[in-house]
Amino acid sequence: MVGNVLVGQSGGPTAVINSSLAGVYKTAKAQGAEKVFGMLYGIQGLLEEKYVDLDEHFHNDLEIELLKRTPSSYLGSCRYKLPDYEADTAIYDTIFQILKKLDIGYFFYIGGNDSMDTIKKLSDYAETIQSNIRFIGVPKTIDNDLEATDHTPGYGSAAKFIAATTREIIRDSLVYDQKSVTIIEIMGRNVGWLTGASALAGSTECAGPDFLYLPELDFCLEEFIKKIEQLQKTKKALVIAVSEGIRLADGRYVCELTEDVKYTDQFGHALLSGSGKYLSNLVSRELGCKSRGIELNTLQRCASHMASLIDITEAFQVGEAAVNAAVEGKTGEMVIITRVSNRPYQCTTGTYDIHKIANIEKKVPLTWIKEDNTGIAEEFMEYVRPLIQDELTPIMIGGLPKHINYSIF
Amino acid sequence: MVGNVLVGQSGGPTAVINSSLAGVYKTAKAQGAEKVFGMLYGIQGLLEEKYVDLDEHFHNDLEIELLKRTPSSYLGSCRYKLPDYEADTAIYDTIFQILKKLDIGYFFYIGGNDSMDTIKKLSDYAETIQSNIRFIGVPKTIDNDLEATDHTPGYGSAAKFIAATTREIIRDSLVYDQKSVTIIEIMGRNVGWLTGASALAGSTECAGPDFLYLPELDFCLEEFIKKIEQLQKTKKALVIAVSEGIRLADGRYVCELTEDVKYTDQFGHALLSGSGKYLSNLVSRELGCKSRGIELNTLQRCASHMASLIDITEAFQVGEAAVNAAVEGKTGEMVIITRVSNRPYQCTTGTYDIHKIANIEKKVPLTWIKEDNTGIAEEFMEYVRPLIQDELTPIMIGGLPKHINYSIF
Repeated sequence: MVGNVLVGQSGGPTAVINSSLAGVYKTAKAQGAEKVFGMLYGIQGLLEEKYVDLDEHFHNDLEIELLKRTPSSYLGSCRYKLPDYEADTAIYDTIFQILKKLDIGYFFYIGGNDSMDTIKKLSDYAETIQSNIRFIGVPKTIDNDLEATDHTPGYGSAAKFIAATTREIIRDSLVYDQKSVTIIEIMGRNVGWLTGASALAGSTECAGPDFLYLPELDFCLEEFIKKIEQLQKTKKALVIAVSEGIRLADGRYVCELTEDVKYTDQFGHALLSGSGKYLSNLVSRELGCKSRGIELNTLQRCASHMASLIDITEAFQVGEAAVNAAVEGKTGEMVIITRVSNRPYQCTTGTYDIHKIANIEKKVPLTWIKEDNTGIAEEFMEYVRPLIQDELTPIMIGGLPKHINYSIF
Repeated sequence: MVGNVLVGQSGGPTAVINSSLAGVYKTAKAQGAEKVFGMLYGIQGLLEEKYVDLDEHFHNDLEIELLKRTPSSYLGSCRYKLPDYEADTAIYDTIFQILKKLDIGYFFYIGGNDSMDTIKKLSDYAETIQSNIRFIGVPKTIDNDLEATDHTPGYGSAAKFIAATTREIIRDSLVYDQKSVTIIEIMGRNVGWLTGASALAGSTECAGPDFLYLPELDFCLEEFIKKIEQLQKTKKALVIAVSEGIRLADGRYVCELTEDVKYTDQFGHALLSGSGKYLSNLVSRELGCKSRGIELNTLQRCASHMASLIDITEAFQVGEAAVNAAVEGKTGEMVIITRVSNRPYQCTTGTYDIHKIANIEKKVPLTWIKEDNTGIAEEFMEYVRPLIQDELTPIMIGGLPKHINYSIF
């Protein structure tokens, strides 16, 4: 490799984003990289020259194994949007000066939509100044909303946790001989990939959620209450999965109907939690029955103890593929996963033009959602089922899953 | 054994309450019981003659293994308070007629405080009518608030899930280079056993929660904000564990300060959720920083996938001990666990007069809580640490933990 390697993590963390970091690190070393630097807190930290030499932190393969089992972004993260370089080159000058100082030849950024925007802008700018540095995006997001790739590392583990937990919650909901409605609120601002995954809870011993409401279609409060009332005639304990991002036909988020203070991040994304609680209060009020809102919250993105082995493995592989692609001379691309077959489940990695990925959200196809938005089609189940398979046994110490040390900050 | 066996489950479910059911069932069969009946939905279901012959549901040891790994109450549950028999014997006549019809010689009730009240009343009434039926309570509650027993089956697994999840949430909270406050709301109406267990997240790689607020001591909103402000001078990402039942000095629950509709059960217990969300909104408003409330909700009582082997084993043992005690002629008692030593951790089972247990809540000793209610003492850690040890591997099918069939209802 010509020059050193720089790798960063960006956006919301996942249970397996560190497995991609492990993949980049191990492959870069195997490819002969002299130094592999990790930027702390993504591009925002890099601007403040916050970085580490990863050799000083990963001493042996046991630590790499712990890294793969540690949730959240080991290097820290940011939600930082670069300005257009046509408007402001100053920040780009700073970044490229730092890259030059560290003799960086390869730049890897593990992230989602917003992070791919960073790769796009940096690779475009590199072209204008004829820099040889190669910029490759490594896909990551529990939301599974990245274009061009069959699915996104992080999604499978979140789906597995959601499905396992939904099954446990359904079991819990059955105990009393009385009417009750449990509403599970699942992440996904504009896409229902995660909410749909709750249907995997269904099995010979579990009916699965009774209704699922995805954000791809409008949500109607009256219809919602009516459906519950109807089903309650034959079933006492109902469990319903809703996306945090469900919206009324007039565009308002259901969670906005509450009074809670909302924090908004730099990309203008408000915290969308509260739809489950709001709906459970509505059910109690309208139908007079016991109702409970359960927000899976950050647990669904950091539950490494329930990670999918398929997901952890693929997360490592996309890191590996990113380094190999950069060594082959590629830049301005993101690694993608292509599904070759479903039975047996087989995937390959490739790369794809970042311009056709950044800032685009891949939604659940409408044909995969029931017309009245109360469930998903079998195609969705076929798609997601392989992604939650198998486990990477946690390393348990003192009764708890062990993580890698966090002395990096 | 003279006569048949009847077993029921009551109160809030846990991850290991079915292991106690397995213990009662297997031991009763081993002791020669002809029939082991399970009442459905506890004493409330029994009054409607809802019961099953368990031999028709447990066909082999694999099913018993699945039962031990299935959360929530297999037989269903209730929150039903028997009237005093001095005031109303009619309901007792009904119950004892049903018991006679089924030729019951032994009655086991797996539950917490309120359920032990049922055992007390039934055994007292049995004495007045000179019935030979033996009534034994089997302890169960994640709250760990039962008197006389060192700890309660269900607590260890909830503690393990809470500690593992807290560690994951703390990791998740560290990713951004900005001030943030994460508030984890943990179950426990009047006792802080579960909230205290979150401190187990602390290790060489994790600082543990920064503050813990237990309901045993008054909670002060102003002090809370002041403590955060103080710590934020040296630390950016704070994680705080609070009990759902924290109360102001004037007696109001913090969660009552919100506007949400609250559902109240038959024992007059309101759903107490909301303190975490309320405090996180308060932090955002007062300190202007990012804040998030995470309610662990029912997950902490039904996360069988993270159950403690010690807990599952002891839950089985208390079921076993209940049957053996009844066969030896005991009645009107509850099985208790006595800790013989901590290093190595060793416990024995015994029984204890139900009159000295029912309706009494065991709180965390005040000497185990820091004076300003921001944390716990080492004695608490020593006490809880053994209870979360080791795992009973889930039986994974299709990527998810398998549960026993629920065709019983």
